[in-house]
Amino acid sequence: MRPAPALRPSHVARLLGPRRVGIFHRCVSRCATRSVAELLQWRPAEKADDVTVNGFVRSVRSMKAHRFISLGDGSSLAPLQALVPADDAKDLAVGAAVRLSGSWVSSPGAAQSHELHVSRVEVLGPSDAKTFPIQKKYHTPEYLRTMPHLRARTPVNAVLLRLRSDVIASLTQFFAGRSFTQTHPPIITSSDCEGAGEVFTVTPANDAPAPGSSSENNSQELFFRSKKYLTVSTQLHLEALAQAVGNVWTLSPVFRAEKSDTSRHLSEFYMLEAEMSFVDDLGPVMDLAEDMLRSVSSSLIESSTVRDLLFRSRTSGSDLAPADEVRRRWEGLMQRDWPRIKYSDAVTLLQQKSSLFEHKPTWGAGLQSEHEKYLAEYVGGGEKPVFVTNYPRDIKAFYMRETLPASPDVPGPTVDCFDLLVPEFCEIAGGSMREHRLDPLLDAMKRQGILKPPSEGVSDGPSSGGLDWYVDLRRWGSPPHGGFGVGFDRLLSYLAGVQTVRDMVTFPRWHGRCDC
Amino acid sequence: MRPAPALRPSHVARLLGPRRVGIFHRCVSRCATRSVAELLQWRPAEKADDVTVNGFVRSVRSMKAHRFISLGDGSSLAPLQALVPADDAKDLAVGAAVRLSGSWVSSPGAAQSHELHVSRVEVLGPSDAKTFPIQKKYHTPEYLRTMPHLRARTPVNAVLLRLRSDVIASLTQFFAGRSFTQTHPPIITSSDCEGAGEVFTVTPANDAPAPGSSSENNSQELFFRSKKYLTVSTQLHLEALAQAVGNVWTLSPVFRAEKSDTSRHLSEFYMLEAEMSFVDDLGPVMDLAEDMLRSVSSSLIESSTVRDLLFRSRTSGSDLAPADEVRRRWEGLMQRDWPRIKYSDAVTLLQQKSSLFEHKPTWGAGLQSEHEKYLAEYVGGGEKPVFVTNYPRDIKAFYMRETLPASPDVPGPTVDCFDLLVPEFCEIAGGSMREHRLDPLLDAMKRQGILKPPSEGVSDGPSSGGLDWYVDLRRWGSPPHGGFGVGFDRLLSYLAGVQTVRDMVTFPRWHGRCDC
Repeated sequence: MRPAPALRPSHVARLLGPRRVGIFHRCVSRCATRSVAELLQWRPAEKADDVTVNGFVRSVRSMKAHRFISLGDGSSLAPLQALVPADDAKDLAVGAAVRLSGSWVSSPGAAQSHELHVSRVEVLGPSDAKTFPIQKKYHTPEYLRTMPHLRARTPVNAVLLRLRSDVIASLTQFFAGRSFTQTHPPIITSSDCEGAGEVFTVTPANDAPAPGSSSENNSQELFFRSKKYLTVSTQLHLEALAQAVGNVWTLSPVFRAEKSDTSRHLSEFYMLEAEMSFVDDLGPVMDLAEDMLRSVSSSLIESSTVRDLLFRSRTSGSDLAPADEVRRRWEGLMQRDWPRIKYSDAVTLLQQKSSLFEHKPTWGAGLQSEHEKYLAEYVGGGEKPVFVTNYPRDIKAFYMRETLPASPDVPGPTVDCFDLLVPEFCEIAGGSMREHRLDPLLDAMKRQGILKPPSEGVSDGPSSGGLDWYVDLRRWGSPPHGGFGVGFDRLLSYLAGVQTVRDMVTFPRWHGRCDC
Repeated sequence: MRPAPALRPSHVARLLGPRRVGIFHRCVSRCATRSVAELLQWRPAEKADDVTVNGFVRSVRSMKAHRFISLGDGSSLAPLQALVPADDAKDLAVGAAVRLSGSWVSSPGAAQSHELHVSRVEVLGPSDAKTFPIQKKYHTPEYLRTMPHLRARTPVNAVLLRLRSDVIASLTQFFAGRSFTQTHPPIITSSDCEGAGEVFTVTPANDAPAPGSSSENNSQELFFRSKKYLTVSTQLHLEALAQAVGNVWTLSPVFRAEKSDTSRHLSEFYMLEAEMSFVDDLGPVMDLAEDMLRSVSSSLIESSTVRDLLFRSRTSGSDLAPADEVRRRWEGLMQRDWPRIKYSDAVTLLQQKSSLFEHKPTWGAGLQSEHEKYLAEYVGGGEKPVFVTNYPRDIKAFYMRETLPASPDVPGPTVDCFDLLVPEFCEIAGGSMREHRLDPLLDAMKRQGILKPPSEGVSDGPSSGGLDWYVDLRRWGSPPHGGFGVGFDRLLSYLAGVQTVRDMVTFPRWHGRCDC
């Protein structure tokens, strides 16, 4: 572009005429459009005219001269009841997107205090009610899972979407209030060996390997020069960021290529991870996890979303855990001073009750689900979450800091880590101090077979599983630090009472399933 | 697990002894640890004792009996100055992570109003200053880009991390205040044909195709049964969610396998996308984009992060655009009533100035960068962002709604869309009304070769590029809706004055580069 002479805005108008610039007027909506939730809360003593509401027809019930329309817009579990003259209602099919205008009138005796007497109907998006897959009746979760693009339009799924949004906003406020920096660690990473399960690789769609060529050997053709993976956890990168700005957190998608077919596993899910710098021991890290969950539950307990979950009728959301059970979960998270018990003591406790269990509790082995359930139930009194700390080193990840000094009455080395257990649901968070010193970290990586002895350099070679950069962080100014991770969709499932995480995520991905 | 007898918490204590439960005391930090930013703002009249600060040594200057330590912790661009007795300072190497305690004392005449007179030094993470790659001197962006895991520890990069966090928090508050639902659309998707560029595919690392087999043909072995991709934009899924809860937004990573080697392209970046339901035209969508950017800039202009960016000295952050230029950008975003001009009128305007341009402005062709710059500069008066609307249909994506009625003085069909241009930087956001009616959408997909005529069914077949579910959304209750997307890292680059998006992202990924 050649240099332009100075030209003032008035010149533009002169060139095009004033009509031509700014012809879009700002559309400040002055109409009285309200959400269904707002209307249901609004109980004016007098009839209110000129009320407009947008939404989707959930059901139509025929009376003599009228139709009763049940209208939902995702803002509340309960629908709005609208009374439409039969002549105006002929296009009001189930599933249709409509705009209804009229008067908001008290309706004594009805389930709702007020109802909309409709004087104007606009069908903005028609629906063929006969073929609409979501009717006002019970649909099994399995059936709904076959149509994730429509499933979110059921009333309960809209509540779940709002819960996710409310929890994110609450977390953002919590961490901002503590000067934690929210970060975006990378999704595509160089490491395949963090020990968090199977990984996915990433290749350009147009670079499918030619027949007969091995994808391992043609690295010169690889988009990123060497093989890259979808992240399984952002923790290692978070540690680098914690060295820059102190305390950090993220809510980031992570990926596992596991073929497990359970109610708790997805191939793609969000992880909430936080990392604290300059902390000497696990205490402040557990405090943070505890404070965070208490803050989220306390800040949202009065919200309309959570009210929809905790005080729903028996029929609405019938695939969820019972409302009183979900209420107990929220109450537990709002309690103070959650118990903290060492793994070794937990095993002792379990062994004293070993007749209750199918699997014998053994020091050095992971806790079985039945063991965790027992601990959550009885150490936490069936209400408070429970921290179990200091697991044996050899069943935990390489980056966890060894507990020093070792306790003489414990059979082997342990690490400064915790699992957070909640009643019924078991592990909901896990965290640890990270090994911040160079030589102990290298020793741990050798012990776990991640670092092959000859290669301790800074190159991004395969002999360290792509983790030389992580080791590097320990070479210059690595203070003691620690953090934790929460499977975010699992947490939401727990908070909502959703029985399988596949129904908590709108478009769930697991082995064999990735619709839309 | 067999049913357990009722057991109260007191029983647990009895089993283990009270010592064993709750042995971790809550570590409420009572020490006077403050961040560097807090200390630099703190100007007590009297000397303050018992002050502790954690941070990293940026530089060491030797005096006779003392060392002057420049300390940073990522909380501010400016360092804290600490005076340490020479005998205590021998391990205070550049890059070391340290905890310094002492008195906060006014230092008249010095650059800072106060300095820390240190009485206690703890080196929490030592550093070999000789090998530390980041010294207190100018490093080129190219040099720093070779070590992304350490780069964030430079003062300017810490400011950039804080800016990202502040902007996310501000956006979250903005959207929550308008009852927008924050969502997590999927990252792994079924569609490869949204027209937003080349895509990556996803396969389990252990499922590398056997030599001689074509990856296209062994779909029975694929992890998700059919080929899957990393999302290039969440918009299509957002539209499904907007049908559930009305107005939605997301801040989500997206991926492009493009080999472009420019200062504006990454293979992995965050997109901010918003979708509004029940809006009749583009006006409210543009209002939302404008209000959002004005809200973010207004809410952050007084923050310490933005002060660091706007009032930095000439030497700090010397790779950024000049501070006064960055100030103009913020001021522009805070202005009201951004001009809106139709593409056709913009082309007329450009043609009247065609001698300025290398490329002739032609109706029906995309605007060249030189054209956008001219429009941003002269329609916006060099300060306000400018909406250019109603581009020709045939150069835009299939999902955009055609402008009706067509204007008689326009050469061809246009769509209800906008690009938002800012001075110097050009496009910073783009949006449109979406075609919400079934038949016009199918026509557009046929016209663009996405939908092959015989397959209009609901199956997730390859003949629709995996978009049958998207078409499906139009079958039942699809109200008029529209939205926009903002390249989040580009927006941050604009706000920070970062010249290339590779330096805005801590771990940037582009063709040939994916470190750590």
